[in-house]
Amino acid sequence: MPGPTRRRPSIAWLAAVALAATLAVAQAQTEPPAISPEEYETATQIYFDRCAGCHGALRAGATGPNLLPERLAEKGAPYLQAIIFGGLPGGMPGWGAQGVLSMDEIEVMARFLLNEPPAPAQISYEQILDTWVVHVPPEERPTEPQHDRDWEDFFGVILRDMGQVAIVDGGSKELVSLVDTGYAIHILRSSASGRYFTSIGRDGKASLIDLWMDPPQVVAEVKPCYDARSIESSKFAGFEDRYAIVGCYWPALAVVLDGLTLEPLKMIGTAGYERGAGDYVEEARVAAIVASHFGPEWIVNIKEAGQTWFVDYSRMDEPGQPLPITMLDTDLYLHDGGWAMDRYFVVAANQLNKLIAIDAKERNVAAVIEAGTIPHPGRGANWVHPEFGPVWATGNLGSQEMTITAVDPEGHPEHAWEVVARVEVPFTGNLFLKTHPNSPWVIYDHVMSPSPVGAATLCAIDKVSFEVGPCWEVPGATDVHARMVHIEFNRAGTEFWVSAWGRMDTPSFIAVYDAVTLEEIDRIEGDWVRTPTGKFNAYNTARDVY
Amino acid sequence: MPGPTRRRPSIAWLAAVALAATLAVAQAQTEPPAISPEEYETATQIYFDRCAGCHGALRAGATGPNLLPERLAEKGAPYLQAIIFGGLPGGMPGWGAQGVLSMDEIEVMARFLLNEPPAPAQISYEQILDTWVVHVPPEERPTEPQHDRDWEDFFGVILRDMGQVAIVDGGSKELVSLVDTGYAIHILRSSASGRYFTSIGRDGKASLIDLWMDPPQVVAEVKPCYDARSIESSKFAGFEDRYAIVGCYWPALAVVLDGLTLEPLKMIGTAGYERGAGDYVEEARVAAIVASHFGPEWIVNIKEAGQTWFVDYSRMDEPGQPLPITMLDTDLYLHDGGWAMDRYFVVAANQLNKLIAIDAKERNVAAVIEAGTIPHPGRGANWVHPEFGPVWATGNLGSQEMTITAVDPEGHPEHAWEVVARVEVPFTGNLFLKTHPNSPWVIYDHVMSPSPVGAATLCAIDKVSFEVGPCWEVPGATDVHARMVHIEFNRAGTEFWVSAWGRMDTPSFIAVYDAVTLEEIDRIEGDWVRTPTGKFNAYNTARDVY
Repeated sequence: MPGPTRRRPSIAWLAAVALAATLAVAQAQTEPPAISPEEYETATQIYFDRCAGCHGALRAGATGPNLLPERLAEKGAPYLQAIIFGGLPGGMPGWGAQGVLSMDEIEVMARFLLNEPPAPAQISYEQILDTWVVHVPPEERPTEPQHDRDWEDFFGVILRDMGQVAIVDGGSKELVSLVDTGYAIHILRSSASGRYFTSIGRDGKASLIDLWMDPPQVVAEVKPCYDARSIESSKFAGFEDRYAIVGCYWPALAVVLDGLTLEPLKMIGTAGYERGAGDYVEEARVAAIVASHFGPEWIVNIKEAGQTWFVDYSRMDEPGQPLPITMLDTDLYLHDGGWAMDRYFVVAANQLNKLIAIDAKERNVAAVIEAGTIPHPGRGANWVHPEFGPVWATGNLGSQEMTITAVDPEGHPEHAWEVVARVEVPFTGNLFLKTHPNSPWVIYDHVMSPSPVGAATLCAIDKVSFEVGPCWEVPGATDVHARMVHIEFNRAGTEFWVSAWGRMDTPSFIAVYDAVTLEEIDRIEGDWVRTPTGKFNAYNTARDVY
Repeated sequence: MPGPTRRRPSIAWLAAVALAATLAVAQAQTEPPAISPEEYETATQIYFDRCAGCHGALRAGATGPNLLPERLAEKGAPYLQAIIFGGLPGGMPGWGAQGVLSMDEIEVMARFLLNEPPAPAQISYEQILDTWVVHVPPEERPTEPQHDRDWEDFFGVILRDMGQVAIVDGGSKELVSLVDTGYAIHILRSSASGRYFTSIGRDGKASLIDLWMDPPQVVAEVKPCYDARSIESSKFAGFEDRYAIVGCYWPALAVVLDGLTLEPLKMIGTAGYERGAGDYVEEARVAAIVASHFGPEWIVNIKEAGQTWFVDYSRMDEPGQPLPITMLDTDLYLHDGGWAMDRYFVVAANQLNKLIAIDAKERNVAAVIEAGTIPHPGRGANWVHPEFGPVWATGNLGSQEMTITAVDPEGHPEHAWEVVARVEVPFTGNLFLKTHPNSPWVIYDHVMSPSPVGAATLCAIDKVSFEVGPCWEVPGATDVHARMVHIEFNRAGTEFWVSAWGRMDTPSFIAVYDAVTLEEIDRIEGDWVRTPTGKFNAYNTARDVY
């Protein structure tokens, strides 16, 4: 087991900052630079693939700043090129330094950003319906598993740039099946029963994967958006597996689907006003969604609107298909979040470096917590601390801090919503952390670190002492240009898996560690292991174990 | 009392149709006609004042058809001029024939419609807050009426083009006060206590009028929209007079206000998808709003989205200001409506010639009813019929029919939601009808009739036999270029008032009739009586008596 590493500055970042400083002064520009229609089209696609996630389809800014020409004109093209090349420590990747974009592409992107953005299209119900395909109707699906594998210990592994999800046996580590899904899957969710995985692609395509089939396969798909990040199933008693919802990044929309066929049922526009009393937000994107345990509801983050909506799916069979939505003002910009105590949905308001604890039972705001810089909890991590009781932790993308908060106002009112520790970690760039009741550690990545070594380094934090235990650079990761990302435990909680996220042209691996000793006990490899990112254990995901 | 009149064709309309038919063939146009910036600005203002109400701020169509150049190009300017001059029987006014627009203005309007429309502006909370004025704070207002008049029998009379509301004593018929409000007030509503009138202008300005002051005056105002049509108070037990809501036509927005100060509290965007499963509707305008008796809710019609929203105002004091909204799919295009049995909000879907009965208790759709052509109920009319039990009636703008529907599924299930009569009336162009428990008649206007005589004619329909009783052309109405519009009863139900809606430059009158004999018993006149339209008795409006 490798020992802890120390913080290292990012060479690429320092270079970018120096270049930018040198060039910025003389670059005030008034006329937008020329760009050919072909260049504009290329740049539009690159922007969608690499930039829109943080900066918005309309370039109005969100997790990343506004990129409209009014704001960028005085910075000038060379400055923009430097940033695109080298990244910034707050989370901006070094697209050139990482070899994702060529210098020619970076040069075009800088000119593109100094011109007006294209107007994005809306979508209609008919267009969505045209994309809906049921490959295997529910009545033709098996009534029991068609294989002897332990399907509840299956992992769904996102192969991001391959447009695939790999179903991997959690016991044998064998590849069970490779299924074609949307492009750059952002998340997999399990249905309440655990039988189905739903996936959502960056291209807006939702897929339903049946784990009982042999091999597991996509039984239905639909594309409700041009760009999407979230999907969830209905999980309340009586509604298990019955409905699903997709949250779109563009258009500003959430779409309710039939849970077994993905038939589109209902479109919910999300354009609105900032926190119910602000500017009009045309690009109000849907970020994380979870299914409530307290009612037949999904809890839906409307990112740029700074609102969280409780969407009740229980009455759609009544005349007029009533859809009750409780709109809650939270804060900007809502991104991801997870359950604390199975009751509080703790979400990151990443522009304000806050966490908002939403009470699913009372349907209001329980607390606001000061996180680090750009908190990015993923689903967060839950455990019970001997002194503080139940706690919940998040990582931070922009600062070297894991933030631990006490989350039990009923059982431990004296510490409720107090930040009980700010653990210093060796790098910025965290996206995910995870734990399991059977592990003494919280495992922490630094995948967005501008430093390749940082991006390949994992840390284990002691759940009782809050001390940073071992940190190790994963051997072989940088050799395949990989960053280590996203931790998932197996059903038993005896081991955890971390993806080596490399390039499409080079197979990488998934490292498997002992949940207690942190020893690497296996490495999943093969030609199919390309651009692995998130992975989701069927049992843990269905039951919100994290 | 004058005798009934017979249906007369409209000369202006016949002339317009003949002109249009002659010119239409040769008018296919490909290039938009030239229009100067000054002409465009003039036309934009005229369009907003006269056309946007029916055709939409974006000109995408609603109650009136789409007026975008793609659709109009082949019709050509002379055809458009003819229609603008002479009107159409479905509700399009003859703006030239009525002397509202000059031939020069009509010529500019036709060219304007063949060019692309201007992009309308959005609005922010700060902009709304800047318009908010409290003239008399609640703590400085009287705790009891400051005059001896019977303020519950006050009538608020809209002086449409004067930007004023006249408060008139229902007993003495004296003008009590003239208050400055928004422009072209669309409706007045009473607060639950009846003490306050709220008014909403076509220009989006809301005003709060305190009837206890001497004289009654505007105590607060705010302008949440550029264009608006609806306002309502909170009326549920425990929330009387506490909140108000304004429904905007543009931007697509509803705004919750403090009921005593009109402080803007919450903005609710209404842009969305047609009936929850259709095209994106950017211009989803808010039409009629009523306050429910079954919960702390307003029932809000989202016109072009074909949805009706239950907006719950009871939880805004909780952390996160939760705002539960139940979205119901109804139909296109929702316009106005009123209570039947105090339980069913019956609204017109005027593109489909339907009425949708919304059950305020169950919060779903109780029934869909076939009306005449372009139903326009105003608030409708309620009475109990000896055979059919409780019935509810609407007029129709585009056909000579008053539609009467049985509305008591619990007490009279055998007739529930049946159209029990389609009463033939002498003209099209109805906007309002009204009755009172103490009158044997439903009084019916034809204000939008293309015929000046039709527009000046009222009818009384027998509530038991459903026969058209007397119809009479109101003497003197055409002499002051007036159309007779909007019926309101006094508190006792012994008389009703009808406005002679003339021009700004000519005082007109309000005719007062005996509720039983239909004799004209009084005529309210004076220099201040200019462009009177709707009028609202404080008692009847507070208690939804109609």
